[in-house]
Amino acid sequence: MIKAAIIGDGYTAADLLRLLAGRDEVKVEIITSTENTGRKISQVYPHLDGFYDLTLAATDLHQIKQSCQVAFLALPHGLSVPMVQELVSSGVRCIDLGADFRLKDAAVYEKYYETVHAAPYLLADAVYGLPELYRDKIRQASIVANPGCYPTSAILPLAPLLNSGVLESQGIIIDSKSGVTGAGKSPKPSSHFCEVNEGIKAYGVGDHRHGPEIAQELSLAAGTKVEMIFTPHLVPMNRGILSTIYARLRPGARLSQVRSVLEEFYGAEPFVRILPEGVFPHTKWVYGTNFLDVGVHVNEASGQVILISALDNLTKGASGQAIQNLNIMFGLPETRGLFFPGVHP
Amino acid sequence: MIKAAIIGDGYTAADLLRLLAGRDEVKVEIITSTENTGRKISQVYPHLDGFYDLTLAATDLHQIKQSCQVAFLALPHGLSVPMVQELVSSGVRCIDLGADFRLKDAAVYEKYYETVHAAPYLLADAVYGLPELYRDKIRQASIVANPGCYPTSAILPLAPLLNSGVLESQGIIIDSKSGVTGAGKSPKPSSHFCEVNEGIKAYGVGDHRHGPEIAQELSLAAGTKVEMIFTPHLVPMNRGILSTIYARLRPGARLSQVRSVLEEFYGAEPFVRILPEGVFPHTKWVYGTNFLDVGVHVNEASGQVILISALDNLTKGASGQAIQNLNIMFGLPETRGLFFPGVHP
Amino acid sequence: MIKAAIIGDGYTAADLLRLLAGRDEVKVEIITSTENTGRKISQVYPHLDGFYDLTLAATDLHQIKQSCQVAFLALPHGLSVPMVQELVSSGVRCIDLGADFRLKDAAVYEKYYETVHAAPYLLADAVYGLPELYRDKIRQASIVANPGCYPTSAILPLAPLLNSGVLESQGIIIDSKSGVTGAGKSPKPSSHFCEVNEGIKAYGVGDHRHGPEIAQELSLAAGTKVEMIFTPHLVPMNRGILSTIYARLRPGARLSQVRSVLEEFYGAEPFVRILPEGVFPHTKWVYGTNFLDVGVHVNEASGQVILISALDNLTKGASGQAIQNLNIMFGLPETRGLFFPGVHP
Amino acid sequence: MIKAAIIGDGYTAADLLRLLAGRDEVKVEIITSTENTGRKISQVYPHLDGFYDLTLAATDLHQIKQSCQVAFLALPHGLSVPMVQELVSSGVRCIDLGADFRLKDAAVYEKYYETVHAAPYLLADAVYGLPELYRDKIRQASIVANPGCYPTSAILPLAPLLNSGVLESQGIIIDSKSGVTGAGKSPKPSSHFCEVNEGIKAYGVGDHRHGPEIAQELSLAAGTKVEMIFTPHLVPMNRGILSTIYARLRPGARLSQVRSVLEEFYGAEPFVRILPEGVFPHTKWVYGTNFLDVGVHVNEASGQVILISALDNLTKGASGQAIQNLNIMFGLPETRGLFFPGVHP
Repeated sequence: MIKAAIIGDGYTAADLLRLLAGRDEVKVEIITSTENTGRKISQVYPHLDGFYDLTLAATDLHQIKQSCQVAFLALPHGLSVPMVQELVSSGVRCIDLGADFRLKDAAVYEKYYETVHAAPYLLADAVYGLPELYRDKIRQASIVANPGCYPTSAILPLAPLLNSGVLESQGIIIDSKSGVTGAGKSPKPSSHFCEVNEGIKAYGVGDHRHGPEIAQELSLAAGTKVEMIFTPHLVPMNRGILSTIYARLRPGARLSQVRSVLEEFYGAEPFVRILPEGVFPHTKWVYGTNFLDVGVHVNEASGQVILISALDNLTKGASGQAIQNLNIMFGLPETRGLFFPGVHP
Repeated sequence: MIKAAIIGDGYTAADLLRLLAGRDEVKVEIITSTENTGRKISQVYPHLDGFYDLTLAATDLHQIKQSCQVAFLALPHGLSVPMVQELVSSGVRCIDLGADFRLKDAAVYEKYYETVHAAPYLLADAVYGLPELYRDKIRQASIVANPGCYPTSAILPLAPLLNSGVLESQGIIIDSKSGVTGAGKSPKPSSHFCEVNEGIKAYGVGDHRHGPEIAQELSLAAGTKVEMIFTPHLVPMNRGILSTIYARLRPGARLSQVRSVLEEFYGAEPFVRILPEGVFPHTKWVYGTNFLDVGVHVNEASGQVILISALDNLTKGASGQAIQNLNIMFGLPETRGLFFPGVHP
Repeated sequence: MIKAAIIGDGYTAADLLRLLAGRDEVKVEIITSTENTGRKISQVYPHLDGFYDLTLAATDLHQIKQSCQVAFLALPHGLSVPMVQELVSSGVRCIDLGADFRLKDAAVYEKYYETVHAAPYLLADAVYGLPELYRDKIRQASIVANPGCYPTSAILPLAPLLNSGVLESQGIIIDSKSGVTGAGKSPKPSSHFCEVNEGIKAYGVGDHRHGPEIAQELSLAAGTKVEMIFTPHLVPMNRGILSTIYARLRPGARLSQVRSVLEEFYGAEPFVRILPEGVFPHTKWVYGTNFLDVGVHVNEASGQVILISALDNLTKGASGQAIQNLNIMFGLPETRGLFFPGVHP
Repeated sequence: MIKAAIIGDGYTAADLLRLLAGRDEVKVEIITSTENTGRKISQVYPHLDGFYDLTLAATDLHQIKQSCQVAFLALPHGLSVPMVQELVSSGVRCIDLGADFRLKDAAVYEKYYETVHAAPYLLADAVYGLPELYRDKIRQASIVANPGCYPTSAILPLAPLLNSGVLESQGIIIDSKSGVTGAGKSPKPSSHFCEVNEGIKAYGVGDHRHGPEIAQELSLAAGTKVEMIFTPHLVPMNRGILSTIYARLRPGARLSQVRSVLEEFYGAEPFVRILPEGVFPHTKWVYGTNFLDVGVHVNEASGQVILISALDNLTKGASGQAIQNLNIMFGLPETRGLFFPGVHP
């Protein structure tokens, strides 16, 4: 039995608890909070009533080190670094759902997150937790930097195509549309029902923090610096990201390779579904699941390629992927607790 | 030209500005704020860009007294009392969109709003601003207590029927469903998009503050103490209240009177539409408008009556009604600026 | 391995498939359709891609009789009767998710469903499939009449209280609010996105077909004819029913009995959660699950009781309950495949 | 008094009626229908109750010719051509809200709309009804081809920039997101509430009919063939289009020109609002209005330009623009009946 701690009690923590309910091999021993200490988990999340007998407590790293083998950190950026430092040094493996260990270059982190990274020496150890790309490294990792929701939706469709030289590495456009859970649980004007409902807007135009994370991973895949634009939008729905990605075929590549490279690369992957020709994903199809669906369009005349991906930002874009990483790290079947269809409609 | 001040900059203030844009006889001179002082109105409400050249300022009663004949108070309860005291004493007529002057009995106010009423002597002067019932008094009023949104939806269908002895005054049930703008503009967990979207819940079960307001007015109409239950619910939509009202026919009354009394009472009213037999209202039909639509169902066998009413909580339930009151108070045609169909669908 | 057929491919069929995916003891052998014959299930329901290798076919009862032990009928009313007749006579146990076997009195069925019942002699054999009330009979049943979604939400909170004489059997009001999946998958004006979104309305006022079904079961529980009113409303959300139920304490009963009777009756039930004092359900808490949550309010002064229940109309209100019945009928643990928390938020 | 006929009774017809209610200079004499003949307009559109005394009738061109000076055609493509032929020849000026007269090249029309154009000789006479570009021609036009909703959102931001040589004419990407009213009033699986709600998808990828319309107008503005990609998406909301447009600065142009050209071109336009630096539009800000809001982002380093536009697809994208055209055609102030702020929130 793997004993786990969850540090934080926002939406990604709630999704971890949903996905871990009833698991035989993993038990959540501890969940911590700043605002809800002393409350039962079913008081904070009544949908979990009957599944956990947990009381939220202030974060006590000593206790976690004594009783847990793994910790999920579901915290705002900046807060994970000192905790991971301490936990890892005591042998607790860490899966950080925040941004603190995703960027390899501390300077980029500091620019975009406007905070000094307290332990840049750990960045080299941290493994970017995208199983489809880094499965082997994740197996041994003591720190897994769980990817951002937008980056997961953009990197998975593009990485194999850049890596195999099918697409140009310049002029890529990623136009993403997200549900509101991505903005977190704290009430803010921008997540007020009446401000979001019955409308759509772009935000973070030109400077969203997930931009450099996407660029880093695409450049690693391409073996050269990738130039891209990323524009996120807020859609009136709870869950889901749809990314519409525009790229150009590289001279010499054939259009048919776009589909064939993706189908080959993801053929054996349990959680990536390359949709048939002419079918494009709907975020509802992956609602609450760990799937990433990808539709492919190529224009014969112009050489333009459109990739459209859909995932659930809290599941494959956060907590589901974190559990996929846990399964890998602890030698469990990778799909354990994650392979089920979504609630539809 | 009537010069008006709006004290407060929440959603009801925004709806006042929407409805007053382009009016010839009324000019908004001043709008005040606590959080947005110094900002242009189009920065706070970009949809108003091009309609007002107003900058939000801290509330300065002296300035309002010098330049305005009327003030709309769109504030949380408790804050209006001292302002109204001062404004009225200087001849500025006040339309209070909050709860401070609605309840005739200061003790009831203090029980439900958990605050001492600072000027109970003014309660006798304040006129409950439901034009269809109190038009004549509103004409002369120096203080108009603009009704709550739920009360407007419940009182208008019931008052004529209670007044004419068609319905029993006991055992009335008012089951109301509201959009989220009713909860105000400040971000709160209960108005977070993800907590509201794709679900419905009841709240304030048994003790919502609009209960005594409804009871007061129904009892006045019936000429006897009315016993009723009021249960509000939160629906994932921005605007609209639907109230489903259950009552019983009084012995001796005929079922046909339910419809005939309502049709007669409201026949000449511009903003109350009694729907044809078998038609029940949809809140979309009154979206953004000053209408109240009412559907009527009577059960021959059991003597049970169901009245279903729909209004826009921000318009007929707040700001539209406030402007209807303004029109009456200043001798303007009552429908001026308010008689237009809703945006549909 | 229990082999099952699903007759029909609407939303309740889709939810059966969701819930049966990955089950060890049950295998869906056949799914039938009128509109989608020849298509793969993943073409009709792409969210099921990877879970089933089924092609929709026209209904062939002969084939079902040869290969299946149980059939789920997910059809419009009237269509199930002849199929159930034939299947049952060949030993295939039937779980009918439609209305054809719910009403014990064929005359009531014929009045409300405006069709002649082709096999009224079967009505006595059919067991009303509410496990919490009829578990023992379900175990042996050859025909299970799976309850309607609204009735499930109304009967479960009320039945034990009527049965134990805590509540008056007269003057009960059930004000229900439902998501749009309850209207089925076929496109209709009333389920067009733009007609439903951002609004709420009542429908079937005074004559909805679920009224007599509720009355039948409440009367059986009370041991006397129950008089009640049922008003359904359409809410802009996919899934969920919230029923707000108003009743009166019977003379001699104590208010505390309301809660104690419910807690005792449902204490050992896995899928009914009686919420703590002061907590009222949100349909989101049961989204996609087989739970029914109930909140209780009693008014000391007036003896008025408010019960508020929430369920997912497609799951506990249809397909989840059908599988709960299947589990009971075939001697499997009743919670198998059904005990998981909802997707939240 | 200008007498108008509306041919068709879908959503754009409803928005025409909303906007023309209470107009002094224009009177809707006739509204025609195929499905709702004989019904009062308030039976089909209850929100219009009290504003019109119109009964829907079958289309009778003879009657229209006798009594009307102008006809709005709000029909599926293909149906307008013969009607416009006949009406125009009798001196009735026509504003076609459909697609039949938008494309100058009948061959392109026939390819994308899969129907033969019955009167290609009229295409040269028809004026593309975008007032900001073609105001002078509209004034005299006997046939106005009212632009598509997506094209309006894409052409207005781009045309001045292409015309003045600020942007490259190649590699433009238009990623558009629309509400569901754009799909029309007829119930279809793709506009079923449950299929749209709580999700987002792309559609018409690579071959949407509005693509060639956009290309035609952009090419006319640029004076050269513009190469672009247009991808529409369906968003769970009733009204609104947000178009995120990606283009590149032309060598020699300065980034500051992007904003300055737009501000100059649209400075005196009543319905186009160029938003301040750093502000990007929300479709809610133009809800129910005739405004087009545009936000501008330029990337110093890369020369990449992002334009984001928002409009209400039924108003500036259809019926509002049609009335703007009517005002121009008949010498009325262009803003008459159209200059009001949106309903917010």
